[in-house]
Amino acid sequence: MSLAFPCVVQKYGGSSVATPDRIKAVAKRVAKRAKDTRLAVVVSAMGKTTDELIALARQISDDPHPREMDMLLGTGEQISAALLSIALNDLGVRAKSVNAFQLKITTTKDHSNARIIDFDADLLLQSFESYDVVVITGFQGITIEGDLTTLGRGGSDTSAVAVAAKLNCDCEIYSDVPGVFTCDPRIYPKARKLDYITYDEMLELASLGAKVLHSRAVELAKKYGVVLYCASSFTEERGTYVVEKLPEWLEQPVVTGATVDTKQVEATIMHIPSRELLTKIFEAVAQANLNVDMISIVEGDRGFHLSFTVIEDATKKLKAVVERALEGVEGWEMHLDDSVAKLSVVGVGMRSSSGVASRFFSILTNNGIPFKTVTTSEIKISCLIPRKDAERALELIAKEYEL
Amino acid sequence: MSLAFPCVVQKYGGSSVATPDRIKAVAKRVAKRAKDTRLAVVVSAMGKTTDELIALARQISDDPHPREMDMLLGTGEQISAALLSIALNDLGVRAKSVNAFQLKITTTKDHSNARIIDFDADLLLQSFESYDVVVITGFQGITIEGDLTTLGRGGSDTSAVAVAAKLNCDCEIYSDVPGVFTCDPRIYPKARKLDYITYDEMLELASLGAKVLHSRAVELAKKYGVVLYCASSFTEERGTYVVEKLPEWLEQPVVTGATVDTKQVEATIMHIPSRELLTKIFEAVAQANLNVDMISIVEGDRGFHLSFTVIEDATKKLKAVVERALEGVEGWEMHLDDSVAKLSVVGVGMRSSSGVASRFFSILTNNGIPFKTVTTSEIKISCLIPRKDAERALELIAKEYEL
Repeated sequence: MSLAFPCVVQKYGGSSVATPDRIKAVAKRVAKRAKDTRLAVVVSAMGKTTDELIALARQISDDPHPREMDMLLGTGEQISAALLSIALNDLGVRAKSVNAFQLKITTTKDHSNARIIDFDADLLLQSFESYDVVVITGFQGITIEGDLTTLGRGGSDTSAVAVAAKLNCDCEIYSDVPGVFTCDPRIYPKARKLDYITYDEMLELASLGAKVLHSRAVELAKKYGVVLYCASSFTEERGTYVVEKLPEWLEQPVVTGATVDTKQVEATIMHIPSRELLTKIFEAVAQANLNVDMISIVEGDRGFHLSFTVIEDATKKLKAVVERALEGVEGWEMHLDDSVAKLSVVGVGMRSSSGVASRFFSILTNNGIPFKTVTTSEIKISCLIPRKDAERALELIAKEYEL
Repeated sequence: MSLAFPCVVQKYGGSSVATPDRIKAVAKRVAKRAKDTRLAVVVSAMGKTTDELIALARQISDDPHPREMDMLLGTGEQISAALLSIALNDLGVRAKSVNAFQLKITTTKDHSNARIIDFDADLLLQSFESYDVVVITGFQGITIEGDLTTLGRGGSDTSAVAVAAKLNCDCEIYSDVPGVFTCDPRIYPKARKLDYITYDEMLELASLGAKVLHSRAVELAKKYGVVLYCASSFTEERGTYVVEKLPEWLEQPVVTGATVDTKQVEATIMHIPSRELLTKIFEAVAQANLNVDMISIVEGDRGFHLSFTVIEDATKKLKAVVERALEGVEGWEMHLDDSVAKLSVVGVGMRSSSGVASRFFSILTNNGIPFKTVTTSEIKISCLIPRKDAERALELIAKEYEL
């Protein structure tokens, strides 16, 4: 699709629209930009709204009906979209808000974790005939049957990239973080902000918990070649571009960033009698939309021992899934270990560099930090370390690689 | 439309769904009823949600864009509908919530005061194939273009009656008030609850501020012969039926009820030079959706003097409307008097009874309460009295007519 006018997609996260004053500040930024270009502005729910709505539902039911939960959560973005549009109109900007019903953002039926199938871009283009800014509710869609769905945590990023992909324009993601850092500045204050990062590195970082960008959004941006720009909505500070390839004048470091994830739990299932049951467990876990990582399988005397990491919040669900998958099977045991952390280094430079892994493990060993379950990709090395050593390990790695 | 199964419409007001516990209590009532019949349950927003959303918008703009305001307010009912449906599912009831988009509740374009044109009853009937209870967001609709609209204060009553009219079934309106009283029990504690009241009486009472039922809902019920039942959602106490004619075994009293409205302001516009301008004012007021009452027109030396009452909250809007209508006209003046109250008695028995007015005015005169601007209908007498005498006047009237 090629547009007859300049256009950009902006996305503002929950903290950027947390209060009426913040919404007014965002409106001023958008209004300034709207002088040169049409804007599709995707918003998240205000501040902690989504958490508050979830808490409200939990006061009514321990296991709220998924369809109804999405009906509930979808209101959060509608409130912030309407308020931002009110603020924009107040500044004299021709703006209107649209929700998932109005923009026909169709998704799969997976409530609370739906995937965008399509949306009505013609309707958006038509709106630009009368409006300079269209404020779009992020995070939500509708099924073909017309049921409201949500895209899961961080889904507003995905909404924004989907719109940018269709309009064939850039996508700016604004949050309370001024860009992508080499590692978490809260743990390592000397961390540097990156001017550029590749989709591939960002994908590894996002899935590792860098919290700047939702990984599905980065995947989508990579697929459609959407240039992403991550910056703070609170300052005018320059942010980070997420691109396919770094500009040629930039020297590619071997390691671009490092993260440590202390929200993962290691699950170990012992004495699984057969390979068929192993497969059954993986199928069940996938069907339940549980993301697992750091998988290790060991064959022992009394069957297979499987271990993997899963996000802390999902352990209750995981237990139920595994128990169902292994129903009728005898002798197996499951343990959850929350004393681990996942340490990772990422860099596209690793592809052309050797000895990265040995250097990485040397640092840990020389400093008395034990590691287990190692996984590697072409551009990433991860391992599990004791959670108590997490911060120290990140600092050591950051210093070593000058992050 | 004739249904193949028993069906009833229930509507629960804001105080009935104000907290998670209240929602659970309503769910229990609905679940009990759902054993015998299908239910379309129309809900208002929780407690003060609508007021809170309005306050939020006002923190952003003094004059929020009407389209966006409706987009904002529409979320209130979606939250309560989703939560009630969560509570019902938790009790094992097959329930789902639907909003105005999903039920295609089309309305006029009058944002914040839209009127229902139609809704997709087939979609509702289809839902009853898989669900026993469909929870519907009250108060809202969409325009033909797909913009969200709201029906104005008390609009959820209208939503409920519209659904009942189409399904050709009864409509039960639940609130924190146990029914229709002869007069306001907070002012006159001896007021009696009525078992039956006619549409016509209820219409006069509703427009006079009896707060039990929205008058548009009663109009619609009368038009389509929908039997209304008003009761408390907090007790099992028997409520009030609103019907076309009282059961024949009931003796019709001359006066069924009395109200005093202290939220009205008397506006007086003096020195209007011509009848054409008088008409212009009325047209402008009607176009602005302002309800005026107690109209009096006097021809004086320097043109016409027009006075009428309008609800207190609307005075700012009224001023703007009148100033625009009389732009360029010289010499006119406008005063607002908030020291008045509107006292009314209502009763279909008045039709066949004489001397009601003289008895009514005697009571006021004998007790030293001055009255002005009198209006009468076949079943109602209203007059303006000093606001400071409002409670005393209602008590006197209530005692006289044994209300």
